[in-house]
Amino acid sequence: MLSSISTPAVITCKAAVAWGAGEALVMEEVEVSPPQPMEIRIKVVATSLCRSDVTAWLSQAHIHIFPRIFGHEASGIVESVGQGVTEFEPGDHVLTLFTGECMKCKHCTSNKSNMCQVLGLERQGLMHSDHKTRFSIKGKPIFHYCAVSSFSEYTVVHSGCAVKICSTAPLDRICLLSCGVAAGLGAAWKVADISEGSTVAIFGLGTVGLSVAQGAKLRGASRIIGIDINPEKSEKAKAFGVTDFLNSSECKEPIQQVIKRITDGGADYSFECIGDTDMITTALQSCCDGWGMTVTLGVPKVKPVITAHYAFFLTGRTLRGSLFGGWKPKSDIPTLVDMYLKKVSCAFYYIIRLSKTHLY
Amino acid sequence: MLSSISTPAVITCKAAVAWGAGEALVMEEVEVSPPQPMEIRIKVVATSLCRSDVTAWLSQAHIHIFPRIFGHEASGIVESVGQGVTEFEPGDHVLTLFTGECMKCKHCTSNKSNMCQVLGLERQGLMHSDHKTRFSIKGKPIFHYCAVSSFSEYTVVHSGCAVKICSTAPLDRICLLSCGVAAGLGAAWKVADISEGSTVAIFGLGTVGLSVAQGAKLRGASRIIGIDINPEKSEKAKAFGVTDFLNSSECKEPIQQVIKRITDGGADYSFECIGDTDMITTALQSCCDGWGMTVTLGVPKVKPVITAHYAFFLTGRTLRGSLFGGWKPKSDIPTLVDMYLKKVSCAFYYIIRLSKTHLY
Repeated sequence: MLSSISTPAVITCKAAVAWGAGEALVMEEVEVSPPQPMEIRIKVVATSLCRSDVTAWLSQAHIHIFPRIFGHEASGIVESVGQGVTEFEPGDHVLTLFTGECMKCKHCTSNKSNMCQVLGLERQGLMHSDHKTRFSIKGKPIFHYCAVSSFSEYTVVHSGCAVKICSTAPLDRICLLSCGVAAGLGAAWKVADISEGSTVAIFGLGTVGLSVAQGAKLRGASRIIGIDINPEKSEKAKAFGVTDFLNSSECKEPIQQVIKRITDGGADYSFECIGDTDMITTALQSCCDGWGMTVTLGVPKVKPVITAHYAFFLTGRTLRGSLFGGWKPKSDIPTLVDMYLKKVSCAFYYIIRLSKTHLY
Repeated sequence: MLSSISTPAVITCKAAVAWGAGEALVMEEVEVSPPQPMEIRIKVVATSLCRSDVTAWLSQAHIHIFPRIFGHEASGIVESVGQGVTEFEPGDHVLTLFTGECMKCKHCTSNKSNMCQVLGLERQGLMHSDHKTRFSIKGKPIFHYCAVSSFSEYTVVHSGCAVKICSTAPLDRICLLSCGVAAGLGAAWKVADISEGSTVAIFGLGTVGLSVAQGAKLRGASRIIGIDINPEKSEKAKAFGVTDFLNSSECKEPIQQVIKRITDGGADYSFECIGDTDMITTALQSCCDGWGMTVTLGVPKVKPVITAHYAFFLTGRTLRGSLFGGWKPKSDIPTLVDMYLKKVSCAFYYIIRLSKTHLY
């Protein structure tokens, strides 16, 4: 059903469609529109399942937008390009970007932000440009997720929501740099800017938390405390640099007290990588007076409101948010891909190999 | 009733004593003990009334500790010194410090913190060294406040809770550098590190808020928005650098929307200088995505818990606390006194002249 590359037409392909909150995804035949001006259509090669997909699918603390195609962390090959696109051509290898970069707005031209005002996080299930969808089933529109929707054999994204990468990078592994691994590394390097010899506490040892550990290790942190309720994470965490694994469900005292005790007053940095606003409070309580910094990376599953006693701030703590690790997606991600290809760190390679299961 | 300087004895003097929460202060004859080892006794020359004194006096969201002598923002002259004190001698001009500096602990020796672990904020109404009081009335102990208690003609403080200043500095004005003015300037300079050309929103235009404005002006902020419900603050605020005064009680739309509109998406920095945790939330909502920073300086009057939607952090905001503007009290305050004496800024002089009423 593929059109010729020069005159793209509708593609009919398979996609995993969510028809309702928490309902099992159904493999459907979907129609994928041709790319509109400044858009590209991608043949998805690999996509990961991020916890944010699950959170949005369950619609806990999120808007109900269905039917929808989830998936926002993917690699692929450009199939066709829309009018005006000069940056990509069919055959290019790309990573999708759930938060884009227009290169022109106040935020893109600032060196302090990755919150593009034109192609930033899309929450309505539509395309940025015309607020319509590019998917349909027998004419019925199917909503997007984060303007990526990679749980489909083909998808359409804005050209500012993809980045060209080296064609020798293995697409089935490198797709993790389109969200989880980059988010964790950036939180450690760009947002917290971890200094050598410091102590770090990481709540939640999924891909994001393990990548924070990896980033902390590469920065020379002296102690990296990983907290999870899954005992199986203990061994895996060590491969990523965690020096102390704490199973919070087995602790007899509040976890923040344990951390304060073993770090002489609290960690220099703490990271919330679960998506639990109560855990943000715990992370704040786990870092030290004076210069303690808590970075929150997770998308909350249930309660979207953070609560914290003012005294934790008045005594010198900082709470920062981190979306995509603070990276400017189009500008910075190719560098991370190069790091991976050059095997900058053996463990950085392991994180790609071990931390996720691929759908494709 | 003064003892000789060489052998200090009990002094009996006047002090404003709070006998209960919210009860009118009563001028009483109090006994002031001689300074114990490493302490000094000070003849108070000038003291200010800080809103934190009032908040603690009303005991809103604070522990009830009475009878008590409030006051923590003062200047004076050393009357006598305790055993082991070599840094001060009788006749020295000093500012009191509600948060001290031992110069030896992990925080004092770090360049990142002013949270002395030995002489930090004292919350039990006692002296740091022996957890007793130095005030009594006919033998009944009278509690301290912040280990300063300057609403007394004489007081005893730890030598780490005072700083020697130039003897030509006018004590009746410079006392404001022992809390409010320094807290505001430091929040702008050290904690937020305001950059030239930036936009700033300041909630609450008391001494602290006006000092933040002054600090922002000296850093070259392009727009300084001051928010207060007292219309009389409008004129005074301009003298301190405020370019736009907003009376939030007269706004027809939420104040954060007004600020976002006039700053093209939100201020670069916002400061909560009221002591209202709900206003911290508003301040967060008033600063911009990407790099917006909210600094909270106030001690809450009622509700001690801050609540904020996670999305304000995930989209790139930072919330930081500031105690005493991040200054290391003994190390940094003499520099501020020198700045005042050299009239570094005309407006900096005005802030001393206009912003507070002195008790003495």
